[in-house]
Formats: sequence, structure tokens, C-alpha cells
Amino acid sequence: MSVTAARGFDAAGVESGLKTSGGLDLALVVNRGPLSSAAAVMTSNRSKANPVLWSEQVIGDGVVRAIVLNSGGANCFTGAQGFQTVHATAESAAELLHVSAGDILVCSTGLIGDQLDRQKVLDGVAAAVGKLSASGGDDAARAILTTDSVEKMCRHTRDGWTIGGMAKGAGMLAPALATMLVVLTTDAVLEARELDVALRSAVATTFNRLDSDGCTSTNDQVSLLCSGASGVRPDVSDFLAALTLVCSDLARQLMADAEGASHEITITVRGAASTEDAEEVGRSIARSNLFKTAVFGNDPNWGRVLAAIGTTSARFDPFQVDVIMNGIRVCHAGQADAPRESVDLAPRELALELDLAAGHATATILTNDLTTAYVHENSAYSS
Amino acid sequence: MSVTAARGFDAAGVESGLKTSGGLDLALVVNRGPLSSAAAVMTSNRSKANPVLWSEQVIGDGVVRAIVLNSGGANCFTGAQGFQTVHATAESAAELLHVSAGDILVCSTGLIGDQLDRQKVLDGVAAAVGKLSASGGDDAARAILTTDSVEKMCRHTRDGWTIGGMAKGAGMLAPALATMLVVLTTDAVLEARELDVALRSAVATTFNRLDSDGCTSTNDQVSLLCSGASGVRPDVSDFLAALTLVCSDLARQLMADAEGASHEITITVRGAASTEDAEEVGRSIARSNLFKTAVFGNDPNWGRVLAAIGTTSARFDPFQVDVIMNGIRVCHAGQADAPRESVDLAPRELALELDLAAGHATATILTNDLTTAYVHENSAYSS
Repeated sequence: MSVTAARGFDAAGVESGLKTSGGLDLALVVNRGPLSSAAAVMTSNRSKANPVLWSEQVIGDGVVRAIVLNSGGANCFTGAQGFQTVHATAESAAELLHVSAGDILVCSTGLIGDQLDRQKVLDGVAAAVGKLSASGGDDAARAILTTDSVEKMCRHTRDGWTIGGMAKGAGMLAPALATMLVVLTTDAVLEARELDVALRSAVATTFNRLDSDGCTSTNDQVSLLCSGASGVRPDVSDFLAALTLVCSDLARQLMADAEGASHEITITVRGAASTEDAEEVGRSIARSNLFKTAVFGNDPNWGRVLAAIGTTSARFDPFQVDVIMNGIRVCHAGQADAPRESVDLAPRELALELDLAAGHATATILTNDLTTAYVHENSAYSS
Repeated sequence: MSVTAARGFDAAGVESGLKTSGGLDLALVVNRGPLSSAAAVMTSNRSKANPVLWSEQVIGDGVVRAIVLNSGGANCFTGAQGFQTVHATAESAAELLHVSAGDILVCSTGLIGDQLDRQKVLDGVAAAVGKLSASGGDDAARAILTTDSVEKMCRHTRDGWTIGGMAKGAGMLAPALATMLVVLTTDAVLEARELDVALRSAVATTFNRLDSDGCTSTNDQVSLLCSGASGVRPDVSDFLAALTLVCSDLARQLMADAEGASHEITITVRGAASTEDAEEVGRSIARSNLFKTAVFGNDPNWGRVLAAIGTTSARFDPFQVDVIMNGIRVCHAGQADAPRESVDLAPRELALELDLAAGHATATILTNDLTTAYVHENSAYSS
């Protein structure tokens, strides 16, 4: 499972003392080759963490040998000292792994504004190198968790090659609830440019459509490392399809574990004039605190759906929109249809469908309800 | 106080049975003249309630004789039947007041999607006409409340003329938490065009900068009625200054009574390249659930401020921004400054200041924290 499902990868997760709560907090994933092609996408937030600033440079040449990830601190808004900590982390791993520091990605998650304890990180890197193994994927997946309650892992094999992955967080690249960190690995034979195209395409319709609370993290990173160890060169569209499945699976796992959520809401917007319109409409609902609190209260308050989508600039007539909750059409032609009482919101999964009656495009956005537990958990955040 | 503080206005508030919880639920404000000039601004939401669709037509000629407001139902997404209810309401009031139905504004607030009981509304209008008096402003202010805990009223007198006002809701024109309804009255002598310019200007820097939860109501209306009964023609800039004071006062009252809030947050953005930039930056913070839950937990988590503003397109360098909480500079030059523990968030009022170091423009946004009580109240909403 996880990042070591694909051949050519070793991983480890260790306790370095960065998390005040204790437990595994530093992960290392190493690509043993023969290839070392890679791609990565970073947060769209302009307030970037130091590991993001570092990793943006590393990924430039499409070569990555290893990735170091820590929980217990975001290393964001920590100035020159914080950047030097990232640099020292990469240098330390590079020396122990006999590769170049410029080929090592670094990811961090935790509180913004506090310095990471550099010595603890460096000791953690050394310990992780000592524990590297082809069965280390599970420990690595555990070491990157913060407020997550469970590890998120995935594997997919076809035609002799495999994609594996791990994720943490409960959000998306932009925006994100907690920081989202994802590491994907494959033993298929692909060039960096092919990986980049596939990764951007897969992320656009999966992680980027998971919008738990409308907030964008400073630290989000999704990386894809390629060892080529299978020796099989896949059809590029086959690879994209498989990668999208893996990303979609991990995105669903993130939604299922979102902080304090009591409902998983799948918003499907149909009949839009464009995909962009469908996405904008879906996202406006995913960001409506009023709608999301109603769902928490098992209240099928479809009026709040229409209030949310009325703030968008998408092309449609609000009075021609159908709203369907768990298969029951509650609004049609600008007024109530089936009685709202006939919708049962007790199950954890809510399927909200909209038909904009404006075209043929569609998009699906994943979100959660807004609960008292979410507020409680985020008002007392520390990790 | 309230809308009858200015000469030339009568008002009433009655119980018509629209609210299942009982209590006053229908208000009437009548302009006795000699003038009947008026201005109004409506929600920017494209999903407009029937009373908004009606009132947009009424205000076209700048003449308003009376305004009818009800709580207990939004009359939104209620189709042709709902629009006919608004029409019948205006016709009924017009007949009893011997004016034209086309000079009567109508406002509603409550649940979206349910039909208003037309007969109850018409009976309420008749009862309200029977109770009209120059001391009816307090009852009117009470009759428009929904989840509000207290009436919001204001008066301001200078140089022989007066502005009075009432408000309900806990939000803003766009966006709004609950629907915001505001009625302003004045006995100054002004033309409709002058009122319109003054109202739009005052609203832009007061109600439009109150952003409690990022949601926009389908029913928001702010109206300004002018009787001219003082016989005094004010300097137009004097009038604008007074009107802005009144709107600012009412906006502060709305913020203080926001649903479930435990903090009133004043976000002042300085050093912006433009007023638009300052407003965008302030609003991004006001809409960050992560920042607002931290404030609820008395946690001066300034990292969430930087994460929020990093998602804007305003011109500034995130690593040159100063963040000041209750007078204490917690972030400077891209890293921590005074320790976050030195900020005391126990008081209800939080002054958050940002210096973007990008220019000389400024804007102030008012918001609240996100609390478990907000979630609870809005998950069980019915009024």
C-alpha cells in the first residue's frame, strides 16, 4: 500500500519529537530508480511556506530523488532561519542518500509562525534513512498526519505498472482546510513532462474540487515520483486515467476524514453553460456556511442553495434551476416542488444535484457540513 | 427614536400571526410629507425575493409613500403566487392610505421557499394602518426582527433636520448573514437624486463593509424616505456625513448582535495600493472560517490571517505585512514579532490591524468570530 506499492521506492516514518503530542512526525520517501523523473503542484496561496519555496526550485528540472515531510510545524512565516532549516534538511538527506540536495523535495504541516527545531528535524532525517524499507509506506503515511484521524493510502495496478499514494489533510490544493500533502509514486516509465501534464490534469478534477471549508493552506503540495522500475511504458492516456482514479480515491478519503464533519456532500452541477460555470456554482454552495450548518442540522434548506448560487457570475436563470437532494426534487421552476420534509438527511452521505438548464457542462465538488465539532477543533488547533 | 424620530413619519408594528413563535411580525412606515422623495438599494444576489423584485420597480421614479415589512417568511422562490402576494400587500396598503400601490415598498425576511399566508399579511396591514402613530417607531423596529436579540435604532439631529433609522439582521447588503433590512427616514428637504447618491455612498462604506459570515441574502433592502417636514434644505455633503454616521451606528449594532457571535472584530487594513485592495484583503480575513474559529477560541493565530490574505489578488508582498492584534505587533517582515501569548483575546472586541506596506489606502471591515453557537443557531433555523 501507500507510496511503496510501486517498485523502486523505499520509505520510512519516524518520531523526531516535533509533535508535542508525540508519535510519528517525519516521513521520508526515496526513489531508487532507475528513473528519477517527477512532477509537483504547489499551493496557489501567495503566502507560501518555506518548504514550498524550496520545492518550487527543486521541481524545476523534473528530477526528484527523495521527499522529506514533517508534521508538527508548517515552517511558514519563519524568515531566513526557517528557509535555512529547509535547506539543511535537504542537505542532510542528500548526504546520507548520496544524491544532490537539489533533488530533494521538502513538505511541512502544522502551525504557522513558529520555528521548527532544526536539530530534531536533522536527527529525524538520519533516523528515517536508517529505517528505509520497501514496506515503509504505512509508517510514512502515519507520520504526516496532523488532525487527521486515519491514514489515507491508495494503490492501483494495471498492465504491469503501479501507482501508489498517500495523503494527509482534509482539504484541497486551493483552498484547503488543513494543509493537504500528497505523495504519489509510480514504477511506470514516463518522462517528467508527461508526469507534469498528467498530474495537473488529474489534480484539476479531483483535489481541486474538494473544498471542505474554503480556506487555502500555505503549505499544500502534491508530488508524483517516477522510478520506472516496472520497465513498462504505459499509454499516456491510460496512465492519466489511472492517476485520476488514485487522486479521486484519495480525495474521497480526505473528505471522509474532514475535521469535525458529520456529512459528506457531493455537489453535482449539471446543465451548465461551461465547466467553469459548473465549478463556480458548485464551489459557491461548498462555501456557504448557512447551507453547511443546515445540513449539519439535517435541515434540507434548499433556499440556502439558491441564495448561494445567486452570488455567482455563472450564466443561468436562478428561477429555472432544479435542486435535487438525495434524489428528491425540492425546487423546480422557481418554487418549491416535493416537500422538504420528504428528504432524509440522517445518512452521512448527501447527494446534492443541480440542473442549471443553461447548457451541457457538468462538475462535481466535494465538501462537508459545518459542525460544532469543526468549530471546536479549529478553535483549539495546535499540532 | 427609530424611523419616527424625523418629522413627517408615522409607524406601527403589529402581530399578524406570520411568525410561528408569535410576537410582532409586520411593520408599516408612512411618509406624511410634504415631500415623498426616496432612494433604495437592493441585494446584489441574482436569486431575488419577490418583495425585492417589486421594490426595484417602485423605487424607479424616486417616489415612496410607505413601506411594509414582514418577518416570518422571505417570500422568495414562491413563484407567481408569491409575487401576487406582494402586489396584494401594496394594493391593500395603498387603498387604506389613499396613495398609489406603485409608491409602496415591500420587504420580507424569513425562510425561503414557503408561501406567505396572504390573508394574514393583508389583515396585518389593516391592523398596522389602524395603529399608525408618530411614536410607532419602536414597535416597527421590533416587528422586523427574526433571530435578532434586540431592536436596532438610531437618530441623528443637526441644524434643524433629523435622520432616524431602524435595522434588522446581522449582516450586510452583499453578503449577509441573515437578511438585512434597513429603513432610514429624514425630514430634511432633498430630491430623490440627492438621496440616491448619498445612500449609495453611505452604504458602500458601512453596511457593505459588514461581513459577518460571507453569505448574501436574497432579501436585503436599505431604504431612505424623505418627508421634507423640517423645511430645512441641508448642505448635501453635511447630509452625507450625517447619513454615514447613522448607517455606521446601525452597522455596529448589527455586528454586536450577530448570530451566536462571541467577538466583534474590526479589521483595519492600511498601506494598501488602493481602497479596493484594502477592502479585498479585509474581506478575505472576514471570510476565513479558520481565522474566525481561532478567535472564538481566544487563539491569536496570526498565521491564519496571512493564509487568508495570500489568496487575494491585491498588490502587496505577504512577507512585508505587519499584523497587529489589540495593539500588539505579532508579525513583522515575514516572521513572528511579539509572542502571540502576549495578545489577550478575552475581551469581546478585537482590533485587527494590517499594514500592507504597498500604498496609502485604507478600509475597515467589520465581522464576527465563528462559534459553536452560530452553527447551532443556523442548523436549527426557522422563523
